[in-house]
Amino acid sequence: MILILKPNIDTEGAEYEQLVSHLSRLQNIELRIHRERGVEQTLTEIYLIGNTAALSVEDMRSLPGVDHAVRVSEEYRILGRHKDDHRSSHFDYQGVRFSQDTLHVFAGLCAVDTPEYVETMMRTLRDNGQVCTRMGAYKPRTSPYSFQGHGKNCLPYVFELAGKYGIKIIAMEVTHESHLDEIREALENAGNPTGVMLQIGTRNTQNFELLKSVGRQQEFPVLLKRGFGITLDESLHAAEYLASEGNRKVVFGLRGMKTNIAAPHRNFVDFAHVPVVKRLTRMPVCIDPSHSVGTRSRGPEGILDIMHVTAQGVIAGANMILVDFHPEPSKALVDGVQALLLDELPLFLEDIRIAREAYEQRLSRFQRGFSS
Amino acid sequence: MILILKPNIDTEGAEYEQLVSHLSRLQNIELRIHRERGVEQTLTEIYLIGNTAALSVEDMRSLPGVDHAVRVSEEYRILGRHKDDHRSSHFDYQGVRFSQDTLHVFAGLCAVDTPEYVETMMRTLRDNGQVCTRMGAYKPRTSPYSFQGHGKNCLPYVFELAGKYGIKIIAMEVTHESHLDEIREALENAGNPTGVMLQIGTRNTQNFELLKSVGRQQEFPVLLKRGFGITLDESLHAAEYLASEGNRKVVFGLRGMKTNIAAPHRNFVDFAHVPVVKRLTRMPVCIDPSHSVGTRSRGPEGILDIMHVTAQGVIAGANMILVDFHPEPSKALVDGVQALLLDELPLFLEDIRIAREAYEQRLSRFQRGFSS
Amino acid sequence: MILILKPNIDTEGAEYEQLVSHLSRLQNIELRIHRERGVEQTLTEIYLIGNTAALSVEDMRSLPGVDHAVRVSEEYRILGRHKDDHRSSHFDYQGVRFSQDTLHVFAGLCAVDTPEYVETMMRTLRDNGQVCTRMGAYKPRTSPYSFQGHGKNCLPYVFELAGKYGIKIIAMEVTHESHLDEIREALENAGNPTGVMLQIGTRNTQNFELLKSVGRQQEFPVLLKRGFGITLDESLHAAEYLASEGNRKVVFGLRGMKTNIAAPHRNFVDFAHVPVVKRLTRMPVCIDPSHSVGTRSRGPEGILDIMHVTAQGVIAGANMILVDFHPEPSKALVDGVQALLLDELPLFLEDIRIAREAYEQRLSRFQRGFSS
Amino acid sequence: MILILKPNIDTEGAEYEQLVSHLSRLQNIELRIHRERGVEQTLTEIYLIGNTAALSVEDMRSLPGVDHAVRVSEEYRILGRHKDDHRSSHFDYQGVRFSQDTLHVFAGLCAVDTPEYVETMMRTLRDNGQVCTRMGAYKPRTSPYSFQGHGKNCLPYVFELAGKYGIKIIAMEVTHESHLDEIREALENAGNPTGVMLQIGTRNTQNFELLKSVGRQQEFPVLLKRGFGITLDESLHAAEYLASEGNRKVVFGLRGMKTNIAAPHRNFVDFAHVPVVKRLTRMPVCIDPSHSVGTRSRGPEGILDIMHVTAQGVIAGANMILVDFHPEPSKALVDGVQALLLDELPLFLEDIRIAREAYEQRLSRFQRGFSS
Repeated sequence: MILILKPNIDTEGAEYEQLVSHLSRLQNIELRIHRERGVEQTLTEIYLIGNTAALSVEDMRSLPGVDHAVRVSEEYRILGRHKDDHRSSHFDYQGVRFSQDTLHVFAGLCAVDTPEYVETMMRTLRDNGQVCTRMGAYKPRTSPYSFQGHGKNCLPYVFELAGKYGIKIIAMEVTHESHLDEIREALENAGNPTGVMLQIGTRNTQNFELLKSVGRQQEFPVLLKRGFGITLDESLHAAEYLASEGNRKVVFGLRGMKTNIAAPHRNFVDFAHVPVVKRLTRMPVCIDPSHSVGTRSRGPEGILDIMHVTAQGVIAGANMILVDFHPEPSKALVDGVQALLLDELPLFLEDIRIAREAYEQRLSRFQRGFSS
Repeated sequence: MILILKPNIDTEGAEYEQLVSHLSRLQNIELRIHRERGVEQTLTEIYLIGNTAALSVEDMRSLPGVDHAVRVSEEYRILGRHKDDHRSSHFDYQGVRFSQDTLHVFAGLCAVDTPEYVETMMRTLRDNGQVCTRMGAYKPRTSPYSFQGHGKNCLPYVFELAGKYGIKIIAMEVTHESHLDEIREALENAGNPTGVMLQIGTRNTQNFELLKSVGRQQEFPVLLKRGFGITLDESLHAAEYLASEGNRKVVFGLRGMKTNIAAPHRNFVDFAHVPVVKRLTRMPVCIDPSHSVGTRSRGPEGILDIMHVTAQGVIAGANMILVDFHPEPSKALVDGVQALLLDELPLFLEDIRIAREAYEQRLSRFQRGFSS
Repeated sequence: MILILKPNIDTEGAEYEQLVSHLSRLQNIELRIHRERGVEQTLTEIYLIGNTAALSVEDMRSLPGVDHAVRVSEEYRILGRHKDDHRSSHFDYQGVRFSQDTLHVFAGLCAVDTPEYVETMMRTLRDNGQVCTRMGAYKPRTSPYSFQGHGKNCLPYVFELAGKYGIKIIAMEVTHESHLDEIREALENAGNPTGVMLQIGTRNTQNFELLKSVGRQQEFPVLLKRGFGITLDESLHAAEYLASEGNRKVVFGLRGMKTNIAAPHRNFVDFAHVPVVKRLTRMPVCIDPSHSVGTRSRGPEGILDIMHVTAQGVIAGANMILVDFHPEPSKALVDGVQALLLDELPLFLEDIRIAREAYEQRLSRFQRGFSS
Repeated sequence: MILILKPNIDTEGAEYEQLVSHLSRLQNIELRIHRERGVEQTLTEIYLIGNTAALSVEDMRSLPGVDHAVRVSEEYRILGRHKDDHRSSHFDYQGVRFSQDTLHVFAGLCAVDTPEYVETMMRTLRDNGQVCTRMGAYKPRTSPYSFQGHGKNCLPYVFELAGKYGIKIIAMEVTHESHLDEIREALENAGNPTGVMLQIGTRNTQNFELLKSVGRQQEFPVLLKRGFGITLDESLHAAEYLASEGNRKVVFGLRGMKTNIAAPHRNFVDFAHVPVVKRLTRMPVCIDPSHSVGTRSRGPEGILDIMHVTAQGVIAGANMILVDFHPEPSKALVDGVQALLLDELPLFLEDIRIAREAYEQRLSRFQRGFSS
């Protein structure tokens, strides 16, 4: 059960103290307190864990300092959608809002290779009005003998260039808890010119120790990608590891599933799960068309499959798009084969705009439909 | 290699005779002649099968009566897209055109249960401007002890009611060659008030004997559904069985793939393959959102997943939609759980219209983009 | 519910008549009578289908002519294992007994190509004491342009040679009901020198119309292979189609499942399901190591993977082995890549003997273990 | 390319110095030196990494101090089997030898729950002549709200009891590099009464940072389990991460693959890959029948499926068996449903003995077969 306290409740005050004291005496119930500092107000929630079946929602709601109480199901306690649970679920980072209603494009380099490419990429993004990007510094690779990314060495110029071109958030994969420190330090050294969304890749979806480390900090939001070979349910539980440690700024990423029936695509595009994740949880949903499709094949009308599946994700309500671009794909060190070209960016953004508009039209049409 | 002859060539004439006589003398080459009678003209094609590597396209093109020649790859010889192959690939049936550019909705009953439901369904379709439907008479079921459909007994009233409500085409699954005769006979007895598109289901995708039977007639077009557990390539080869026997009026159907990673959907929605099938072959592509999704779950905004995935298929260029409706789903004998309600039809059609408009906008935007 | 009548009950006699008359008056119950003529006795069973929940097993058992009564679960009514169901489940064909306790090897040609190869194969089998083989006349192939088998044309010499070399049973795939007539006719024309076990391949596991046709005759036993991409449960239900039409001489075949995680094997070897099928049903279980493995790769000790997986199937209780051999694999028209060589047959049979002996040792050890 | 130096070469001596000095001057070649201290001799290998295509094996073999040279393929450089590579690949730990020729049973508790159960388990093992076990202290669980194992708190009594009952090696899963320190410290505190084989579970197969940490130490051998949802090839590459960091004491574990076609087993048993892993690499292969099967179902003859699949793994040459037992499965905190009972241990060991004997018989029969 979650008790959402009155906004801005004084956690030093008598009312709060009385409440906690009362709750502490409940049998077989453990308390976990979560505090979320927003711009306008601070929200305090108390999670009651254990044998809560015997507690009444009405009783809990009537306690001092409690605004409302929500009985959560066992599954996805924190990130899940529960009955009569009307808490907002957006988060803001670097002035950018993420929720199940927004849409942001993170176009960029799958792997950072040279400062020149990073600069070219970021300049192009700025010129097209973009403030988010993806830049891979730490690359998990199937073989230990493959290029593993430039790691912390590239962070200084990546962050500096981001600042120069007005990039506010960089999605960046991490594969070890030490990467957080490296990122934090490099950001500070550069004067915090930009922000980072930590990305957990499909190979680490159930690396619970990494999830706990990333979940224990609240500075950086997290993009958790769905795991290969496990069910959607299991991947959503993995997201809950982040939240249970305290970080609820979590975006859930669909990136295609590995199976032979996906061919000729590299992975089986799973964007039909966009509305499913939005129904089961309150997380914004990201789609990764590049790794899903994995090729630059086109329909007979000349449109890239990557653009087709992006439109499919967007028309069903996707909230974030992670997509590979590269100034010279043939020279990319990782996954160049699927990268879009810089001069395809305007068309790609325009295509997204059309699909998003259709989504909004559908939404408003349905809302009228149901009220009429 | 395919020789496309001059339109309306006289197959009794000297030019044609001379051509065939010449081709018959080619070593290790077998001829297969295909004639397609359209409203305005008759098209004759001669397939050269065997050791065609030694033949020159130029030589063949210069033969009497030949309009142009296309060297086909080994794969999907007839239905595939080949280099420099600009043959049109539409077909017309009952005054309705099917191609990779058109879009038709086939809403209807998964299984025919009572004349009343059939009539209610068809009346609703007419009232919403629809001229196509789906009606299952022969139902393949996992267990021999489950309801297997009313079979030929329901055909008389199904066809009569179709005529009454202006339904031009009924998509109807067949599982045995004898069903074709039953359908043909029932249509004739009823005075041919409607038409039938023969549907081959996922369990029979590689029932090659059935494909050959259905391929040997050209009266009814065919909707071939993708097979469970086989690759897309294998399912496209199965379509080629229809064409190699003479019937090229083939629509290819995507209906979701059976795998545990699809959950909570019944099958893994595979509509990202819409542009893939259109690139590899010249077949129109049908999507079946009902059997893919298999539930009436909704996104948090209230829109059914079935509608979301329909929009996904349409925005990427789907040409046909096969969808289950039922006047009283709880009483449906087969698959009621996923059926849309009759009063959801207008909203569903409107939703499709929005997605189709977005597709067309995308298309025109890209065509301008590439020419500019 | 199944009523097993007294052995050799006279179906013209008064007792039988009285019984049937009584049963016919039961409300909402349909009767289906099945008669199995063995060498020593004729067994008659009456299936009560419909609302049998209200019937008492004791009441039924006390009816005239009834030996015992078994309440069957909904699943796999005829072929399934039911509580307190001690009916024997073997069948004899051509003097060969098939049950969950026997083991037979069907080594032979995946596809019949020339009379010479057929003769060489059969001579080798006879020289190694074998009386069963596999010979493919009708080959379902992915592409319509591939070799589809010699069909009925090869049957005369195949059957004649079988007679010459003492082969009692040939496992032969059929893909259309007409093949049964062709086989029956060819056997008669040749003077019935051998027998045929009809094989339904993985592409037709859910071709219910073919199953019904094959199930309606009781002359030939049937080997039903598990289907690609469907669950084991669904494949077992398919077997029930055969039985529900009257043919209970059914062997169930495991042949590997198509999935990318099988690589470097062609299919994912599923022989861990040998005891599962034996637990859920009373069918003998066949394994097909050739199509499962699909290559001639060897372990570092020099033993072919095909032999390893055969040993795995046998040590867990497999009852039949279907395996590809070829005198000159490089010239085989179908699947030569995985065929064993004729001079590998003795070693293969010896390997099977070792594994079978281990199975029997395990069995006797466990039976002692549980009784002690 | 790998240069295997003369045994016991003096790495302080002139010959060695001369060799290294020569190799260091090769263009675009990086050296990695690996030293393996055995009981009788120390083996030194020099890996040449980079552009080795231009080097001649003969030239390298003729260098001072070099015993022989092996050109390795790109794949699985260290753990793979390469042409003309006759290096032994066993390793010894705690007086127990692990190779592709040995077989060891690791029966024990999936998760440590109480000291009493640990003691009962270990006493039973000793009474049955066993010196290895499995004991889970760190348990990765799908949900953050499930029991996660007792962690380092249980190590003292687990190690002490192991010493008391003569257990030499405990297979124990680790999910974070800090667990190595905790294990090392607890072992030292207890006076090193036993040894530990570090187990990397299926969720961490591609947690490359953990692999690198575990690979950087050579004290503990490692059992790496195959990953869900990735190919066998990718899992074998993951093993190479361990070796490339220096630890070649690696056992590869098969534990079933997650897919719906596995039902009614929990995972799809993949023991047909035993000979495949032995062919592609030089690692000993472990099978985990408990997690593969996941139930206590039995064949109709009364033998547990877990025992059937164990026999399947062993008859094809498995080298290690990881299996769950529990004194009171209904009280187990993790995976009790599949645990074998303590009084089933003798029968289980006897069953393994029968299958192993059959394997050895097969082996000797084949070796005679090929030489005759």
